[in-house]
Amino acid sequence: VSREFELIERHFTREPRGAVLGVGDDAALLRPSADRDLVVTTDTLVEGVHFSADADPEALGHKALAVNLSDLAAMGAQPRWVLLALTLPRADDDWLSRFSRGFMTLADSFEVDLVGGDTTRGPLSICVTALGEVDRGAALRRDGARAGEDVWVSGVIGNAALALLHLKGDVRLKDPDLGKCLARLHTPKPRVALGRCLVGIASSAIDVSDGLVADLGHIAGRSNVRAVVEYSRVPCAPSVVSIKGHDPIRRAILGGGDDYELCFTAPRDRARELEKLSGELGVGLTCIGRTEEGHGVAVSNEDGTPMPIEAAGFDHFR
Amino acid sequence: VSREFELIERHFTREPRGAVLGVGDDAALLRPSADRDLVVTTDTLVEGVHFSADADPEALGHKALAVNLSDLAAMGAQPRWVLLALTLPRADDDWLSRFSRGFMTLADSFEVDLVGGDTTRGPLSICVTALGEVDRGAALRRDGARAGEDVWVSGVIGNAALALLHLKGDVRLKDPDLGKCLARLHTPKPRVALGRCLVGIASSAIDVSDGLVADLGHIAGRSNVRAVVEYSRVPCAPSVVSIKGHDPIRRAILGGGDDYELCFTAPRDRARELEKLSGELGVGLTCIGRTEEGHGVAVSNEDGTPMPIEAAGFDHFR
Repeated sequence: VSREFELIERHFTREPRGAVLGVGDDAALLRPSADRDLVVTTDTLVEGVHFSADADPEALGHKALAVNLSDLAAMGAQPRWVLLALTLPRADDDWLSRFSRGFMTLADSFEVDLVGGDTTRGPLSICVTALGEVDRGAALRRDGARAGEDVWVSGVIGNAALALLHLKGDVRLKDPDLGKCLARLHTPKPRVALGRCLVGIASSAIDVSDGLVADLGHIAGRSNVRAVVEYSRVPCAPSVVSIKGHDPIRRAILGGGDDYELCFTAPRDRARELEKLSGELGVGLTCIGRTEEGHGVAVSNEDGTPMPIEAAGFDHFR
Repeated sequence: VSREFELIERHFTREPRGAVLGVGDDAALLRPSADRDLVVTTDTLVEGVHFSADADPEALGHKALAVNLSDLAAMGAQPRWVLLALTLPRADDDWLSRFSRGFMTLADSFEVDLVGGDTTRGPLSICVTALGEVDRGAALRRDGARAGEDVWVSGVIGNAALALLHLKGDVRLKDPDLGKCLARLHTPKPRVALGRCLVGIASSAIDVSDGLVADLGHIAGRSNVRAVVEYSRVPCAPSVVSIKGHDPIRRAILGGGDDYELCFTAPRDRARELEKLSGELGVGLTCIGRTEEGHGVAVSNEDGTPMPIEAAGFDHFR
């Protein structure tokens, strides 16, 4: 822990709730629950790759934590602790104060403790490590799907990519969709409560960060099943429904990523439970397809004909 | 976890020994020991700040992990798991293969599992998060020193800074010291075994990363004691003994940092035990001073007069 860490202490220190020892020693001391598994993930956001130089620091602080909490949500875990390694070109108090507001507000809303980290001088990048807990053996993994199950997504898919298309001038979104799409891009909401409720219901789960087809492909690959998505059932922003079949919109919905919704599989007899859960949490849950014997992901048109997703170049969309 | 993570899978994958689920899902699944505390630390190395563009990738892989294991050692913890977030300007197979060799060889030597991480395109930086375990309540903290104790260091202090001085042409080291100093700078050995043995003996500990005076200052500050170091007792490389009093050498020894030795306090009646431990581990342990009522760090000359360390500008040495 270097001297610059005082910056972190100044802007980020809270009284830790669930840590024996937080910021300020060589390492943090945590006391995990004895009967639960520990879930750990790390993700880095780099200026010029994941965000632009003029990005709003508060939104950036939110997003850097949100993408990591989303990974925990996709495992069905309860977030507990987080570490922040910040690389900054200079110690800018105003920037740090706004960044920390976004970061800590989200952390507080999930009762997550910032327990450590460091700051380093260099090109702006943000590396977050998040730790959570899940009942022993109960984590939602990518390898649990079986043939003959339903494929579900939460919320609305493609909004983050649609916001990018709007900002580039390729489509013109209208409010309230525009606001929702921009919010999804800049301040995504990790589906933590949903993920925890899916434990015991879903057979596999992933968060939609690389794009629906790519992420569902990870489930298919790890589970050794084929996933078939009916494109018309994929929930999207109302203002693009009429142009949902147009190529750039289709690419945004199927390949855009950055939505941080959950995509998961569940046995068919859990459908009623999931509909009930949707109402209780106030989160849309939509069955968009099924799993079968085979491998890979296929997308079908409304008439059942296959949609040529490989040729559409989703792999290089990002 | 992004698609580029395949790079990590290709170069870093091992069968996990102590993890339920390692690389390849949204997060890693770990099962910490029920009766132990979890110790977590994160540290970033940035090109141009912590290493130069032409740094040897294998040494860099070693060092990126070593500095984190050193933080665990300073807590008395047994290293268990590690996550690696790599930001790379491009996917360079040769670089990655050498980097991973350095990283994984050190990880294997401590039976540490790489359980997750990500790769991102951007200016080269390496963010490592290390997790370890220590018996409940037994961690070596910075705040445990009491007045009237001894101050100890392991090994030899200042070697990394002396190597830098040599590379800059400011001093001329001779082998075997030169080799030892360069090795300390490029491939430091975290004092993991020593740290674990100090549990129950030392009252506080820190690793010497910022410089002896600065790091001992953290113990003094957190423990509300004053630490007094007798400069002549600080162990240093044989070839600089005759010029140990010269200003740049003194600055290297007292302010240089990057040694990753342990500095710790212990009650006086533990001295014999520590000498025995030194022999058993083959690691030099030297009592360099004492703690007393007061605050801060003082360094004294051989004749007992105070050495003016503030004016020497140690704070900006790095």
